[in-house]
Amino acid sequence: MTPPPSAKLVLRDAKEVADVQSRADTRALPINRVGIKDLKHPVRILDRAGEQGTIATFNMYVSLPHSVKGTHMSRFLEILSERPQVSVESLSLLLKRMTDRLEADSAHLTMAFPFFVEKAAPVSKTLSLMDYRVTLSGERTASHAIRRWVKVVVPATSLCPCSKEISAYGAHNQRSHLTISARLREPLWIEELIAIAESAASCELYGVLKRPDEKYVTERAYENPRFVEDMVRELAMQLNREERIGAYQVEAENFESIHNHSAYALIEHDKDA
Amino acid sequence: MTPPPSAKLVLRDAKEVADVQSRADTRALPINRVGIKDLKHPVRILDRAGEQGTIATFNMYVSLPHSVKGTHMSRFLEILSERPQVSVESLSLLLKRMTDRLEADSAHLTMAFPFFVEKAAPVSKTLSLMDYRVTLSGERTASHAIRRWVKVVVPATSLCPCSKEISAYGAHNQRSHLTISARLREPLWIEELIAIAESAASCELYGVLKRPDEKYVTERAYENPRFVEDMVRELAMQLNREERIGAYQVEAENFESIHNHSAYALIEHDKDA
Amino acid sequence: MTPPPSAKLVLRDAKEVADVQSRADTRALPINRVGIKDLKHPVRILDRAGEQGTIATFNMYVSLPHSVKGTHMSRFLEILSERPQVSVESLSLLLKRMTDRLEADSAHLTMAFPFFVEKAAPVSKTLSLMDYRVTLSGERTASHAIRRWVKVVVPATSLCPCSKEISAYGAHNQRSHLTISARLREPLWIEELIAIAESAASCELYGVLKRPDEKYVTERAYENPRFVEDMVRELAMQLNREERIGAYQVEAENFESIHNHSAYALIEHDKDA
Amino acid sequence: MTPPPSAKLVLRDAKEVADVQSRADTRALPINRVGIKDLKHPVRILDRAGEQGTIATFNMYVSLPHSVKGTHMSRFLEILSERPQVSVESLSLLLKRMTDRLEADSAHLTMAFPFFVEKAAPVSKTLSLMDYRVTLSGERTASHAIRRWVKVVVPATSLCPCSKEISAYGAHNQRSHLTISARLREPLWIEELIAIAESAASCELYGVLKRPDEKYVTERAYENPRFVEDMVRELAMQLNREERIGAYQVEAENFESIHNHSAYALIEHDKDA
Repeated sequence: MTPPPSAKLVLRDAKEVADVQSRADTRALPINRVGIKDLKHPVRILDRAGEQGTIATFNMYVSLPHSVKGTHMSRFLEILSERPQVSVESLSLLLKRMTDRLEADSAHLTMAFPFFVEKAAPVSKTLSLMDYRVTLSGERTASHAIRRWVKVVVPATSLCPCSKEISAYGAHNQRSHLTISARLREPLWIEELIAIAESAASCELYGVLKRPDEKYVTERAYENPRFVEDMVRELAMQLNREERIGAYQVEAENFESIHNHSAYALIEHDKDA
Repeated sequence: MTPPPSAKLVLRDAKEVADVQSRADTRALPINRVGIKDLKHPVRILDRAGEQGTIATFNMYVSLPHSVKGTHMSRFLEILSERPQVSVESLSLLLKRMTDRLEADSAHLTMAFPFFVEKAAPVSKTLSLMDYRVTLSGERTASHAIRRWVKVVVPATSLCPCSKEISAYGAHNQRSHLTISARLREPLWIEELIAIAESAASCELYGVLKRPDEKYVTERAYENPRFVEDMVRELAMQLNREERIGAYQVEAENFESIHNHSAYALIEHDKDA
Repeated sequence: MTPPPSAKLVLRDAKEVADVQSRADTRALPINRVGIKDLKHPVRILDRAGEQGTIATFNMYVSLPHSVKGTHMSRFLEILSERPQVSVESLSLLLKRMTDRLEADSAHLTMAFPFFVEKAAPVSKTLSLMDYRVTLSGERTASHAIRRWVKVVVPATSLCPCSKEISAYGAHNQRSHLTISARLREPLWIEELIAIAESAASCELYGVLKRPDEKYVTERAYENPRFVEDMVRELAMQLNREERIGAYQVEAENFESIHNHSAYALIEHDKDA
Repeated sequence: MTPPPSAKLVLRDAKEVADVQSRADTRALPINRVGIKDLKHPVRILDRAGEQGTIATFNMYVSLPHSVKGTHMSRFLEILSERPQVSVESLSLLLKRMTDRLEADSAHLTMAFPFFVEKAAPVSKTLSLMDYRVTLSGERTASHAIRRWVKVVVPATSLCPCSKEISAYGAHNQRSHLTISARLREPLWIEELIAIAESAASCELYGVLKRPDEKYVTERAYENPRFVEDMVRELAMQLNREERIGAYQVEAENFESIHNHSAYALIEHDKDA
């Protein structure tokens, strides 16, 4: 079936494996982002207690000038293979490495990973881990400016103020996702954003709850009803006061216990605009 | 770059495009299922009100004897291209067509789709659609027996009996999925299984709820607390009484409003075993 | 367990079910978007051949002034319950209805759905359906301007130019997603964007391929190698020439057959900026 | 809004928080599985090189006799909070702990996680990590028998024998998933199952490939074409010879580069039946 490879193989060897990507391109179109997407890799993330190991999904992109046909994808992997310890602060080092190795003007990186915080149950003080979805992202622009974003998706309880008010007893409540995406002026701990998000909900979540804890969180949520509108306003108020944050987008999504769709609200604000 | 195609093309033409799949295989290993997976196709589903159009994801497999190298994948698509109207009853026709066209001993088919039921809100009677995930599946065995399964995933409200009992006020509740997978002795309507599932929860869900409806569903759930254990037992009791069902698996999953994981229970029973 | 409902119920009735959402809010924070998310609903979409029924996932949001506590979520559902026939052109009607019914300054709508095009196989001309993921979105601003976006995710074949050049025979190829997000100056058919995307790949996909068709698409892809960089440049060149489009973002993602991650490229351009 | 909590709270304190779950149930229906689902937790997995840290998603279920109303969900979390190091061998310890702590007849556990293997590229020998999805599961029956399953999902390259044979040049190929689910008679390394799966494909995948490696994998796949039918037969042949495996299900799924659906095949066999 196969064409006789001999002549062609000789030809290849003579060329010592052509570098097609480095050839010229004549379409006069620069590319904003090119690279690798959805690569899983273990990482060590700095946290308040020291560091934690987790598994991140990486997107790593650089810009490509109009005159070059393609980028060199394997170099992104080589940067990761050095297994850097990652923190909000070290993002700029990774971005610098990307522009250097790929000879690019600008670079863009996102890494999304599960992040764990050990929490004590509110009454029994039983310790357990809570998991959050965190995304660190950074950009190095052609003028060598660095922009860093942290995004946390924080599951929490929301209890409906309308349902509580109009009902003779009970109130519908549900799991919600509170999401903060913050552009940083200065580093802050991932745990600080999680704490802000949890304080904006009707009640925070825990891994282990014993019966006295379950009584506590049930009553706490009932005493503290919140619409999605309330939760994004609470988040915005707190982030407006936080000097280390230059811009933010906050979201609240309720996986409604009385509907098969979500209630949703969003506020965004750029203090530096 | 390309090897000169002329000689090879002539060769191909002489062979009039070889049928590689039909060749003999010598590994003496029959294949239980081979075919296409995750194909999206519009379908018309029979419902109590007549029929509804939806988009199904199909898996279509046949058995392959040990002596044959491969099946003919395009024939599955041809069967779907005839755009049959589908119901629990017509599954056996589709399965027959699969064994005939693919010259197979046995066939297996699943089609998963969103299914809509128009419901009236409990107080205001406002009409709206609720969506459910339904999977019809069928099997035709080498002995020409037909087995048909219907699976419905029904979102509902569950309210925790423990939380209600131990708390001074309120009770945590959340969206749950009640799942019934039933092997049928005789056809029944998808809507019948949905109604059974909804009756097993603390309260059913609706698309539109006006304030008097929201008051109703809040109080209804509070009056009707259910663990996942309670819900699967309610489902099992009802399916045990249903003569048209020969075997079932029932599941309840609570997307807990106080945890970031689910509570889950399952009962399975084969009356015909 | 339950507190005696009688007294409280009387209280409720006297208030005729309080409208908590309409109350004043004192936090002085307007909300950019509030509404419903991930609601499934059947729709009729206008296409070149007339129209097609499909199942859409809706997000519907309005802005909320700082002085109001909450929006009225059930009104979004009421708009959908009128079951409008939807096209790129009718988006502005839906947005107008949203600002009117919810007494809002601005509105934002997205609807994502599977969309089908009947295609003839390249040699045998056998007809079959191909499915694409389409998202229509629209925004009505406080100044009553309307912005409409169409996004299509088009699966296609890409064949690696480097692999072809350096290898004695064969070339790795894979399924790719070409994504066009276009802000429209004037309406165009969804099918026109799909055709643009398919022309940028190494080869387009089909539902049914008979053996002569399979030979055709294999050779066509081999004759037409494309990096992700090539594909986004091809897309950008064509969209630059298209007067009905005011801004675009184009993406190419290869689900690499030789890696467990994707290769990815993106170009974005706003002609009206 | 809230009913005066005082009287009720006194009542609660007197009861010292009621244990609703432990009450009697009169429906005479035992529950096959009840517990927690989709809980994320960090784990240490034994591998050939020692151990690796990863993030697992746990399902942990026990049986519940007909006479008891509910299980004690928090105890599953307590078992995980002891952060056991996990291997195929230690599954039986975890299952024993589950039946003991939850006073249950039988227990069922699954843990799914990304698993990494360091591989050298075939020509340049550059080292990089490849990620796989692994699920360990185990069952402890009422008669104290232990059943252990390992499932690996191995991404690989498949190249179509028909496309190669009928085409003048090239052959369509794509990323495939080869899945082995094996019931173990004796422990084996996860890496052993991965190696079996990779040997059944047209070529295995790597994180980093330099140009000489890319030439190698392209030619290797072209020389080694495989249908999904071929791949499951190769897997079955190898697992039939493996004495440590008592039963298996093997699957091959091609994310076809010429279609928008998958080709799929499955063989299952229970040697101990």
